[in-house]
Amino acid sequence: MELDFVKLHGLGNDFVFMDDFSRDINLTKEQVALLCDRHFGIGADGVILVRPSERSECAAYMHYINSDGTLAQMCGNGVRCFAKYLVDRGYVQASDGQFVADTLAGPKPISFEVDDRDKMTRATVDMGHPILEPSDVPVNVPANATSADGAAFAKDVAITSPWGTFAFTCASMGNPHAICFIDDFAQLSDELFTNANDKSLATLDLNKIGAYYESHEAFPEKTNVEFAHVRSGAIDMRVFERGCGETLACGTGACATNVAAALTGRSGRENDIVLRGGTLHILWDENDHVMMTGPAVESFQGTVEV
Amino acid sequence: MELDFVKLHGLGNDFVFMDDFSRDINLTKEQVALLCDRHFGIGADGVILVRPSERSECAAYMHYINSDGTLAQMCGNGVRCFAKYLVDRGYVQASDGQFVADTLAGPKPISFEVDDRDKMTRATVDMGHPILEPSDVPVNVPANATSADGAAFAKDVAITSPWGTFAFTCASMGNPHAICFIDDFAQLSDELFTNANDKSLATLDLNKIGAYYESHEAFPEKTNVEFAHVRSGAIDMRVFERGCGETLACGTGACATNVAAALTGRSGRENDIVLRGGTLHILWDENDHVMMTGPAVESFQGTVEV
Repeated sequence: MELDFVKLHGLGNDFVFMDDFSRDINLTKEQVALLCDRHFGIGADGVILVRPSERSECAAYMHYINSDGTLAQMCGNGVRCFAKYLVDRGYVQASDGQFVADTLAGPKPISFEVDDRDKMTRATVDMGHPILEPSDVPVNVPANATSADGAAFAKDVAITSPWGTFAFTCASMGNPHAICFIDDFAQLSDELFTNANDKSLATLDLNKIGAYYESHEAFPEKTNVEFAHVRSGAIDMRVFERGCGETLACGTGACATNVAAALTGRSGRENDIVLRGGTLHILWDENDHVMMTGPAVESFQGTVEV
Repeated sequence: MELDFVKLHGLGNDFVFMDDFSRDINLTKEQVALLCDRHFGIGADGVILVRPSERSECAAYMHYINSDGTLAQMCGNGVRCFAKYLVDRGYVQASDGQFVADTLAGPKPISFEVDDRDKMTRATVDMGHPILEPSDVPVNVPANATSADGAAFAKDVAITSPWGTFAFTCASMGNPHAICFIDDFAQLSDELFTNANDKSLATLDLNKIGAYYESHEAFPEKTNVEFAHVRSGAIDMRVFERGCGETLACGTGACATNVAAALTGRSGRENDIVLRGGTLHILWDENDHVMMTGPAVESFQGTVEV
């Protein structure tokens, strides 16, 4: 069967989109794996089938299949691409500026901006509220601080590694995150850098230290690990994703880092988070919702035989 | 500008092909890098523009641009894909069974097989003759053996590493190769395997030992490094490409491994070489030419804005 597809990415997190409003696309696990293979197939982090929603308020349903064939609940970068797919193809009116996307994790309100050709440039997604209670993150340490809203949380908890002790603030955005803020990289062990003569966030050997903390006993369901540096006007961040290794960008990681920076008094509640793949603008609003704004880009379109 | 393209691969070595018979495609280094980027672009090892040849005997010219924007002389996997592009689109008659491809390294005669829809399945490329004289490979060791044809070569030369001493046979196919045949992986250091409980060619930490030998002082222009295991009917091989790291397949590496196996009496002159990305059939013929036969596959086609 020959299928049309569109390839989109959000900060390098990339997806093969297929129109499945007729619900007749059924891909096996092996077909998805081949489509996502970067040498033998199209190459992507996942396949997203655009299906009709059964909810009247939703424009469409995002059926997101990971490259290993499992279904994904939601994905911040993926849902921005989903919005661009719908807006650029006229399934959502560009002049509306907003719509509701249906996902396995429920309806997600999305607002967006378009260029002068009515093509979507940026979208804002409500990523929900952070979970701070340590046993719910989960992280095996007692809460040692309280937020302005009275929520107990794990703040700058010292956890030892073979390369020294690092302080992690822990939060969940539906998945666990442990965020370590570093002011001065020069003070860390040379062994943690790919270039010991230029110790910075960029040269940190994240796959070494991230893998260590991902599986540390403090994290009963393992954890995503973020290393971040707060500077004037922005937070630089790199992310080691649980079970995956370093990635170019992680939407929930950017949200959790913004929350952790605000909780620990390192910044306000609204920041540009600068990731390897690009920048996300994150606002932790007064209603405890984390709003993520970022770009989505169409890379190319094509046809593939499956 | 919107450009049509076809993505093809030979054993996972993959290329973006564009029809440029009108010679009006001019890509900057940055455009090539973006086209080849596996997250932000189409994703490929290189871009191949299909141009008219100035040689009357050639069907077309393969203008091969590496992902870093430099030009490539030739590529065994690439030229099979080039043949498939031309045959499947009727630029070469399927019933001819052969044609001459023009490349930066000169004309290359190609023979091919087609399926019942006249689509190319496999192609055979004359990869030229091996260079054995150590100073021409180049490798800084004296010749210690002579081939049946009277050519001096470096046979199973012992070179020490931090993980033990390994024996390399050296040959060039236009680029230098150092091939190490291992009979029993269980006898090697545990440190050389990603899984010390299952020591085999598959679990060898090739990026560790390959990087060591690639830059060893014995190789004045560095070297590609092959580890191989001869078994009944085939040779299993993994390749660390100079300046690149491990790859799924290397055509010249498969040719050099076949030559080295024959030179050292480990096999005859014709073998299936089983690489991570698939199998190549290599014949070192009586005229000292190395003939490589392998598949080429079309992954998908599309359009991209550059």
